[in-house]
Amino acid sequence: MELIVNDNMLSELGKKFMALKSASGTHSPSMLTILEKIPDLKIKVDACFLSNPYATDLFLEYFNNELLKSKKISRVLEFYPSQNSVIADLLGEHLGINPKKIFVCNGAIEAIQAVMHQFVKGKVVINIPTFSSYYEFINKDSEAVFYTLEKENTFILDPEDYISFVRKIKPNSIVIINPNNPDGGYIKYQDLKRIVEELHGIVENIIVDESFIHFAFENSDLELKSIIQLTDEVSNLIIIKSMSKDFGIAGIRAGYAVMDEEKVEQLTSNGYLWNLNGLAEYFFRLYTRPDFRNKYEEIRKKYIIETLIFISELNKIRNIRVYPTKANFVLIEILDGRTAEEITNTLLIKYGIYVRNCSDKKGLKGQFIRLAARSASENDQVLLTFRDLFE
Amino acid sequence: MELIVNDNMLSELGKKFMALKSASGTHSPSMLTILEKIPDLKIKVDACFLSNPYATDLFLEYFNNELLKSKKISRVLEFYPSQNSVIADLLGEHLGINPKKIFVCNGAIEAIQAVMHQFVKGKVVINIPTFSSYYEFINKDSEAVFYTLEKENTFILDPEDYISFVRKIKPNSIVIINPNNPDGGYIKYQDLKRIVEELHGIVENIIVDESFIHFAFENSDLELKSIIQLTDEVSNLIIIKSMSKDFGIAGIRAGYAVMDEEKVEQLTSNGYLWNLNGLAEYFFRLYTRPDFRNKYEEIRKKYIIETLIFISELNKIRNIRVYPTKANFVLIEILDGRTAEEITNTLLIKYGIYVRNCSDKKGLKGQFIRLAARSASENDQVLLTFRDLFE
Repeated sequence: MELIVNDNMLSELGKKFMALKSASGTHSPSMLTILEKIPDLKIKVDACFLSNPYATDLFLEYFNNELLKSKKISRVLEFYPSQNSVIADLLGEHLGINPKKIFVCNGAIEAIQAVMHQFVKGKVVINIPTFSSYYEFINKDSEAVFYTLEKENTFILDPEDYISFVRKIKPNSIVIINPNNPDGGYIKYQDLKRIVEELHGIVENIIVDESFIHFAFENSDLELKSIIQLTDEVSNLIIIKSMSKDFGIAGIRAGYAVMDEEKVEQLTSNGYLWNLNGLAEYFFRLYTRPDFRNKYEEIRKKYIIETLIFISELNKIRNIRVYPTKANFVLIEILDGRTAEEITNTLLIKYGIYVRNCSDKKGLKGQFIRLAARSASENDQVLLTFRDLFE
Repeated sequence: MELIVNDNMLSELGKKFMALKSASGTHSPSMLTILEKIPDLKIKVDACFLSNPYATDLFLEYFNNELLKSKKISRVLEFYPSQNSVIADLLGEHLGINPKKIFVCNGAIEAIQAVMHQFVKGKVVINIPTFSSYYEFINKDSEAVFYTLEKENTFILDPEDYISFVRKIKPNSIVIINPNNPDGGYIKYQDLKRIVEELHGIVENIIVDESFIHFAFENSDLELKSIIQLTDEVSNLIIIKSMSKDFGIAGIRAGYAVMDEEKVEQLTSNGYLWNLNGLAEYFFRLYTRPDFRNKYEEIRKKYIIETLIFISELNKIRNIRVYPTKANFVLIEILDGRTAEEITNTLLIKYGIYVRNCSDKKGLKGQFIRLAARSASENDQVLLTFRDLFE
């Protein structure tokens, strides 16, 4: 398992990695950036990366068959993609949502930016730990009010407590990521529906990020339960959806948001004209096709089941604590006295396993790393390594 | 030359096309959108599309050799691209510009949007005819003041007259596209330098869009003359650069802007984190490589020469007037009494040649179409058709 590196190399590569990490702000440097900047570093498993690898394979299968063999790829690269509204029309039909309520975007991060800049004014309640862009992208005149998900409650959001917190703060907006990042904590459909119904009258915007919802489920059919249809009744509900994770295509940059027609109009009337690239357009067209969706459903469930097995094995390992998750990753607390930084660097440099050091995450007290589920064989490598490292 | 269509089909397809055009606002529907929505329409030459086709071929050659054959494409699609600043570092070195002054963007349109939304406050002088996004993307509290490029002066900007206009208006910002779209009118380096030097003290932002500068030249070496280096001395000069046209990769969405460090910081400190996709990152890496640049320089010049020949042939055709251009397109006035709409539809439906009907362009009095130079053989088809149609 172990890569052959001596202590000097360990410290040298560790320093380089820490410098790279520090240059990436509150995010992790991508694997491509690491490969370029520290070519000596051999990454065997990128368990920092939150993405279904089987979905990538499925997309590549279509990409090869439909774009490469036919040479259609040249058109996709050469010509302007369709305008935003053309792709919203396609998506609307597929999702059963009025297309005028759909804002397609260059990765969910573009929708996060647009929503936080244009619609969030004043106080915004953000649950921590969280995906940092939600508080980093607020306007100067906005203020993030943090609602702490307690380690003692295994980071699970208590709907009653949350509702009374929001009632007390009276913010302009609230942000909920479901399942949450970095812990994977899941709010059940009925609970989230209740939160929306209780709070939509007292806040201007309810922002729900469902980027990891394809990995969550409430019964043994593993069906996904999105609250997207609630946007029909609740006009100030905004749903943000990345396609990078569930469809394994982060490099393509594809996402969408569902929000009130007027808000979409406000965004697209003076911007966001050609914000999808040709491959993102191809992906969205594929996404609406039954043949692709049926195959995708199979590998979505396969990945969920493998992830469940992976987590149950992780749970057996001593000296770490694995927090409950319904996403494709777990938050792990290190209990043997070593720091998250030490573990992250050792995993990366000595074992070639890249995980997310969560030391920079607001609201986390203790030593935490976030570990993504990958393919079954990669998960096995991770398990072997973790047993080696912690037991 | 002529496609076999009867009058019924002509009117039917014409109606469908006009509906599509109207749904695209002040822009033309892309060829891919047309192909999808009106499959009966056979487009032989897309002369609406402002792009060097030889550059597309060159990019595809690299794409095939470096990404497809090696299977590296899967990484490009699967993983997150590098953050904005990583690519700015690469570009800065190549352009000889401080990378902190570079804002890489998801097509130049993203920079146009960012600049018009964030930095332009109050009056902005925009020369018409123009690329409509410049006035469409202004804030509600901004006001576009149009400086008309006169047909009588063949749409050429007179530096003296322009400078005194701006001095009189005292705007917050000015926008100059060089060469201009849709006429291709070119302001010489020395004249533009003078405009910048005269006006930088009296306006907050001088926005110069050099998206077509690779097609312009001032001597028989066909060297391009960008004013990008002036940003070193003139801190309120903003250069916007699309890569879609000169590099023939509109589907990839790649562009950059050069502006004051503080402005870049203002944009990237709370947004634009992963706004380039994996292929755009690949393109920018390619763009900085000498082997690619040398080959590109050859085909850039080849395309300019062919465009010069094409335009000189167009100039001989009766009943149209071809306005002077240093871009890869020409603005053509129809002098035989037919309307631009009639000519556009006839060209598209009867001959399969897609041109830009300029009827919706502010500041154009008369019947105008914009015609792009394509490959030499496509240009020949266009010439045959134009002779057929106008003589």
